[in-house]
Parts: sequence; structure tokens; C-alpha cells
Amino acid sequence: MPSSAVAYARQNHPRFLEELKSLLRIPSVSTLPEHNGDCLKAAETLAAELKRIGMEHVRLIETVVHPLVYADWLHAAGRKPTVLIYGHYDVQPTDPLDEWLSPPFEPVERNGNLYARGSADDKGQVWAQVKALESLMAANRALPLNVRVLFEGDEEVGGEGIESYVASRPPELKTDFALISDTELFAPGLPTLCVGLRGMIYTEIEVRGAKTDLHSGMYGGAAPNPFVALARIVAGLKDENGRILIPGFYDGVIPPSAEELAAWRSLPFDEEEYRKSEVGSKQLVGEAGYSVLERTWARPTLDVHGMPGGFTGAGAKTVIPAKASAKVSMRLVPGMTPARTFALYKSYVEKIAPAGVDVEVRLIHSGDPSLIRVDNPYIEAATRALHEVWGKDTVFIRSGGSIPIVGDFDRHLGAPSVMMGFGLPDDNIHAPNEKFHLKNFELGIQSLIRFLEEVGG
Amino acid sequence: MPSSAVAYARQNHPRFLEELKSLLRIPSVSTLPEHNGDCLKAAETLAAELKRIGMEHVRLIETVVHPLVYADWLHAAGRKPTVLIYGHYDVQPTDPLDEWLSPPFEPVERNGNLYARGSADDKGQVWAQVKALESLMAANRALPLNVRVLFEGDEEVGGEGIESYVASRPPELKTDFALISDTELFAPGLPTLCVGLRGMIYTEIEVRGAKTDLHSGMYGGAAPNPFVALARIVAGLKDENGRILIPGFYDGVIPPSAEELAAWRSLPFDEEEYRKSEVGSKQLVGEAGYSVLERTWARPTLDVHGMPGGFTGAGAKTVIPAKASAKVSMRLVPGMTPARTFALYKSYVEKIAPAGVDVEVRLIHSGDPSLIRVDNPYIEAATRALHEVWGKDTVFIRSGGSIPIVGDFDRHLGAPSVMMGFGLPDDNIHAPNEKFHLKNFELGIQSLIRFLEEVGG
Repeated sequence: MPSSAVAYARQNHPRFLEELKSLLRIPSVSTLPEHNGDCLKAAETLAAELKRIGMEHVRLIETVVHPLVYADWLHAAGRKPTVLIYGHYDVQPTDPLDEWLSPPFEPVERNGNLYARGSADDKGQVWAQVKALESLMAANRALPLNVRVLFEGDEEVGGEGIESYVASRPPELKTDFALISDTELFAPGLPTLCVGLRGMIYTEIEVRGAKTDLHSGMYGGAAPNPFVALARIVAGLKDENGRILIPGFYDGVIPPSAEELAAWRSLPFDEEEYRKSEVGSKQLVGEAGYSVLERTWARPTLDVHGMPGGFTGAGAKTVIPAKASAKVSMRLVPGMTPARTFALYKSYVEKIAPAGVDVEVRLIHSGDPSLIRVDNPYIEAATRALHEVWGKDTVFIRSGGSIPIVGDFDRHLGAPSVMMGFGLPDDNIHAPNEKFHLKNFELGIQSLIRFLEEVGG
Repeated sequence: MPSSAVAYARQNHPRFLEELKSLLRIPSVSTLPEHNGDCLKAAETLAAELKRIGMEHVRLIETVVHPLVYADWLHAAGRKPTVLIYGHYDVQPTDPLDEWLSPPFEPVERNGNLYARGSADDKGQVWAQVKALESLMAANRALPLNVRVLFEGDEEVGGEGIESYVASRPPELKTDFALISDTELFAPGLPTLCVGLRGMIYTEIEVRGAKTDLHSGMYGGAAPNPFVALARIVAGLKDENGRILIPGFYDGVIPPSAEELAAWRSLPFDEEEYRKSEVGSKQLVGEAGYSVLERTWARPTLDVHGMPGGFTGAGAKTVIPAKASAKVSMRLVPGMTPARTFALYKSYVEKIAPAGVDVEVRLIHSGDPSLIRVDNPYIEAATRALHEVWGKDTVFIRSGGSIPIVGDFDRHLGAPSVMMGFGLPDDNIHAPNEKFHLKNFELGIQSLIRFLEEVGG
């Protein structure tokens, strides 16, 4: 016998889905200034919907770039806890656009999935949260606990706005715990709570050689080539076995406990299947002596995302560019801090930079790693709710990704986070053909309803 | 007492300059398909002008991409030699556009120079050739020798069209020697003939890792990163002293003669001044034990022009791209061939490619190196003409650049080339703020007139 809120959600699901499609049609790409208006439109859409379903004090909070959306409802009868519900309405860019099978901002249902940029990361999950609140409110004319909502529009560009807002510890964020829906199930149908996240630093190395672009015929052999210098720097950051060569980089890394490692080994995970179906490369890479789950969840890594500069069009241009850059990020694990890691990295890059060029190392953004204790009442309520909706025991996993806000909520608000998300590993977030499994949208809403009911007692 | 043709050129110079500006306003960027119409327009402009001044058999010759412009006048009295006059009407792309002080296709006179893309490379020089012919024809109602004109529109993209056309040895290209105006004076006011050119191969290395772009949080530590692999490959191509590490690469390289090296040492050239005013880097790079002129004229080199792929916008995107490329070219010197060099390079790149990725090495275009003997009557006539116009002895230099057509004329037509060009070392060809020195345009026309008169006897 489902709760009346779950019944309401089931009954209204077709409408919920159409509403989500409308939200997905707004190209709220936070990193591209030409989409600032779209980000605002997405924020306003969420604010209007929160107001419509009965939330109070709905407002946009201006930050550095895109506004936060705030709302609350604080009238729960008795001594009920307060939850801070978090998600983000901004999305990743869509390039390479020509690899999308359907346009990224025209949501299409295909094979039981909803394809669109932001469908899984994170608008589909944000909308599941809003629809859970609507269902609870509609069924009971009240919520089972006190609720604050805080949606962000800068998550994909580092979230500086929300970070400084949370760091200011505003009274309106007083909360007992946070509910974050921006993670995924470990496997289809397997209820999952994420209890650990990697932190990160995202950097840019700019190398400058000649004062202007030069002809490689005239000057090749005398003028420094910034790409050759960058290649030498990047090649010096990792050895051929994937071990990062920055001195002191691994110092202080806290390994997972024996119990956690044992639990990971019992997860339904096959490295060869993962290589073939998820990654699709001819072999996997990374540090020797660690499993894939350890390498992606509990080991720091370093990746290069792009090397802007010079000539990148089709055909040939014989230029020695005056400058070139590398966008380099590192994922951090418990025991590491962004500030210390960046300092080690910066001084190492400056040290190994070849002669003839000037090098500048910039920090674009950063976030702390997080590890959540599983013996708290919110996690316990979550596992009960998930069992009811999915019919299975919850698995506790970590994520290789970074949700810096988890650390911020902990540090500034004293609030532990429950990371209850409904993506899947093959959702292509940050890639062409992002999707959200339709069943997960539906059961996700029900899981959120039941979780909030369980916590509200 | 100047020839009557020189007098005509002087009298009409203001018009010549305005006409050149019109030609420069056509954005004939051969590497960008969106400018195909502009390339055609530039070709048609040249054809119309050649017809107007009295050249015959004017026509466009279709090739792979942009047409050749052909014209001739073969009525010289007596047994006069035939010259094949060559230049190119296509230009380099303009990026980075924001570094131009004035728009690249709006020619502006500043400080005694004409600023525009293509002003020196090579439309200004092509126009000097056309105006020399106009002056000779207008002053004498005839030319002093038989003349064929062949202008190209694919020079900046490898010149495959003209190469296969010349290789077919068409009767209409029967010629005694070629006159090419696409080089520069060694220093302002110093008459110069270029007698050696480097060849080149322009290649692209494409590295593919995962089957699709992946999130660097989720997959960092397991998925291969194409940029890291490319950095390792590029860093493996050269050592820190600029020596190229491809096995066998230097085999067969023919060094300059002792006489040539001695002549180079007497040229007005200061490496520190060159570093400061031309290159502007904090130090010069390249092989130890060779002077700058040797390194740029007589030693093979390797440069990277761009590394397309991944995320290159402002801000941050945490993507492990499925693929990335490096545009890599090598300059070749006498004793090296493009085919052999490419084969050595390709097998070495495949050998040093890291595990986990697929690598494809493609040849985009290539050209042979050239070395011209200086004891032929055309070179001798050129030095007489240059002395008359510039008042100084000619210096013989090489160029680090590549003009593959010189080798083609030699191999297929048996025609030695006279490379008489009027650019300057700081003309910013292939870079923002390309310019052509106005005085060089004027004296260049006169030099070409007098050279053709000298050869015609």
C-alpha cells in the first residue's frame, strides 16, 4: 500500500515527464556566456514551479554568475528535522555537437531513456526532487519535515557562488542534513547511496614563446614552440604507468578501509565488461596494483581536457603559435587538499618547463574530497525507503566525480549529506547523447518521497 | 636614365597601389571552404587584369580545389627565352583575429607599410609581377621575352593542384626558367636572391581512446586520455636540445658548403637582435652547435601547430575526450625526401604511442627541398637588375620556408627558378598584422621590369 504521495506521483507521472522536457529545452550551459539568459530562464522556471506547489520565500539569490534558487517550507508539525535539498540546473556544453543522435536541447524518448543534455546531470534529478515535494504537498497539504531548497546554476563551472554563500552561513540555511540528487545507481535497479567523492583542482597551464605567431618555415629551428613545451610538461606529469610524478602528490592519501574494499569487491562489476561497454578503449589505463573501482573512487588522478591555441581547423597552417595552453585537472581523495596539491603541482610544472618559454599556471576552480559516515539516521532512513521502492538492499559506493558542495555543507553548516541520485553509469553525462533512464526518473521521485516521509517519521 | 617601362611604373604607382588594395580586400583563404567563392573571385580578378594589360590565352585551370590562372604572350622578336612567372593568390587564415590592429581584409597604410593578410604573402608580390608586365607592355607594346604566367590558389594548403598539373608537363608550360616572387630580402634595402628552400611534410597524428567523451571524475584513472598520449608522443619526437629523435631522420642530410657558410657569416645578422625584435621569446631554441641561419635554412626541424580536440573554450569542462590530434610538420633539407621522412616518422610514432590508445598518422601534404645553382644566366641577369634598382650587390640566401613548386619546375619542366621576392623578415606572414613594405612594392615592380629586360637582352 503506497503512501498517498506516491499514489499522486504515479497518477501524475506523464505530466511530470512533459514538464521535465520543457525544462530540458532551456540550454542552460553555464560555462558559455552567450547562455547566461538561458541559465536565468531555467532558474526562473524552477522558482515559479516551487511557488506553484506551495513552497515559501521563493527567491533568486544573485551570486558571481548564475543565481541560486531558494525556497522553504518550515511548518512541519512537532519537532521535525530540517532538510536542505540541493541540485543544479546548469548543464555541460554540448560539443562535439555532430556526435549527438538527436539535438541536445530537444528531449526525445528512445529505448526507455530520455535523451537530452542535462537529463541525468542534473535537471532530471532536480525535477524529481521538485515533483517529490509537489506530491507530498498535494497528498497531505503539508510536508513531513521542514524543507529548504537550494538549486545552483554554476555547478559545472566550479560553483564559486554557492560556495561563498554557504561559507557565509546564512540563517536561512540552518539545516540538519542535506539531500543531494546528483549521483547514480551502481547498476540498473540497484539502489545506491554515494558516501564518498573525490575533490578536484581544475587548472590551466599557459605557455608563451615568441611575441607573435611565426611562420614555421622561417622560424622553425630557432623559435620556441609552445605545444612542444606543453607536451614535455604534460608528459612529465605522469609516468607510463599512470603514476603522477609531482613530488609529494600522494603524501597523506588515506586508503579505503578493509571493510569498504571488501564491499567493493562484492559489487556486480566486471572490469572487462566495463572496458568494452562503457569505456570502449582497447585497454584500460591507470596505476598498477589497484582495481578499476579503487582507481576511479579512491586514487587521485590527472587528466588533460583540451590544449587550446594554434591552428585547429581542417587542413594545414604552418604556424608556430605565440602561446598555447593545456587544461589540466586532478581528482583528489581523502587526505589531500586542493590548496596543497595546487602548490605542489604549480611549482613542479614551473620546474620542468623547458627553456625558451614563459609558463603561467592558473587555478580555475577546486573542491575538497568528501567521505560520509554511514551510521547516521538519515542514511538509515534512506536505505529503508530505497528498499521499499526498489526491493533490494542499498549498496554504498563512492564516486570518482566531485561535488564540492558536500564538503561545504559539512564544514559550514554542520550538515551531513545524503547523496541519493538516480543516474546510471552509461548516462553519457558530459558527453554527447546524455540520457536519463525513464524508469529511474519515476522510481527516483517515489524514493525521494518515501525518504522524506521516513525521515519525517 | 630609367627604361621607359620603369618610368611608366613610377608614373602609375599610386594607381597600382590602389589596385593592390582592392585585391587584398578579397579574403581568399584557401584552407577554409567558406572562402572558396573568394578564392575564385581573386583568380578572376587576376585573369581580368592579365587580359586587360594585353596577355593572351588567359584562362582559369580547374584543379582539386582552387583554380590556377594561366596567361601567356609569346611574340618576342628574335630568339628570346621564355619565362614562367609564378605567384599565389591564396592567403593564410587570420586567427587569432583579435590580435590584428586593423582588420585583415581592410588594407591600411601605416608607417610606410601596407597592412593586410596576403600583402606580402603573396598578393602584393603577385601584383608587382602583373604591374611589371603592364609597364613593359604599355611602354613598348611588347614584352622583352616570351612570358607565361601561372598563378596558384592552393599554395597555403599544399599546392596539390599545381603539382599534378606541372607533373603532367603540359605543352603550354614549356619554358626556359621560372620567376617566383614569394620570398624576402634578407634586410631592408638589401637585394636578395633565395637559392635554397627547405622541403616539408605536414602531418596529423590522431589518437583515439574511449569510444565517446567521458567524465573525468567518473572515468579518470581508468580511461586513456588522448591528450596525455599525444603529449607523450610529441615529447618523444625531440630531445630537450631540439634534436629530432626519429631514428634515421638525419641520414643523408647534405650540409651547406664551406663557401656558403662563410657567406652567411658575413650577412648583417645579429642573433640577439633577431631574438629580441623578430622572435621576442626569452631565449632561442634549436640544435646546439649550429647558428640560427644554419638552423633555419639548412637543418631539418619539427613543429607542432595545434592540438585539436576536447574542450578549448573559456572556463572548465571535465571531459576525457574520445580523441585528440596533433598537427605536426617537419622541414626537410637537401638530401632528405618527404616519402622517406614520413615513413620513418610514422613508424616511430606508432612505436612510441602509449598503451590503451589507437594512433593514426596521416600525411596532409609535402614538398621537396630545393637548391639552385647560382652560375646560370638568369641569376646573373637578376643580380645586374637588382644592383641597378637597389644600388647594392645581391646576397644569396636560403629560406627556411618551403616552395614546393621550385622542385616541381626543376623536375618536370627542366626549368631553374629565380626566386626574386620583396618581403621583409618582419612582415608577419602567417601571423596577425601581416604587412608589405610600400617601398618594396615600388622597387619590386622596377626590379622585375629590369630583370625581364635584362634577360630579354
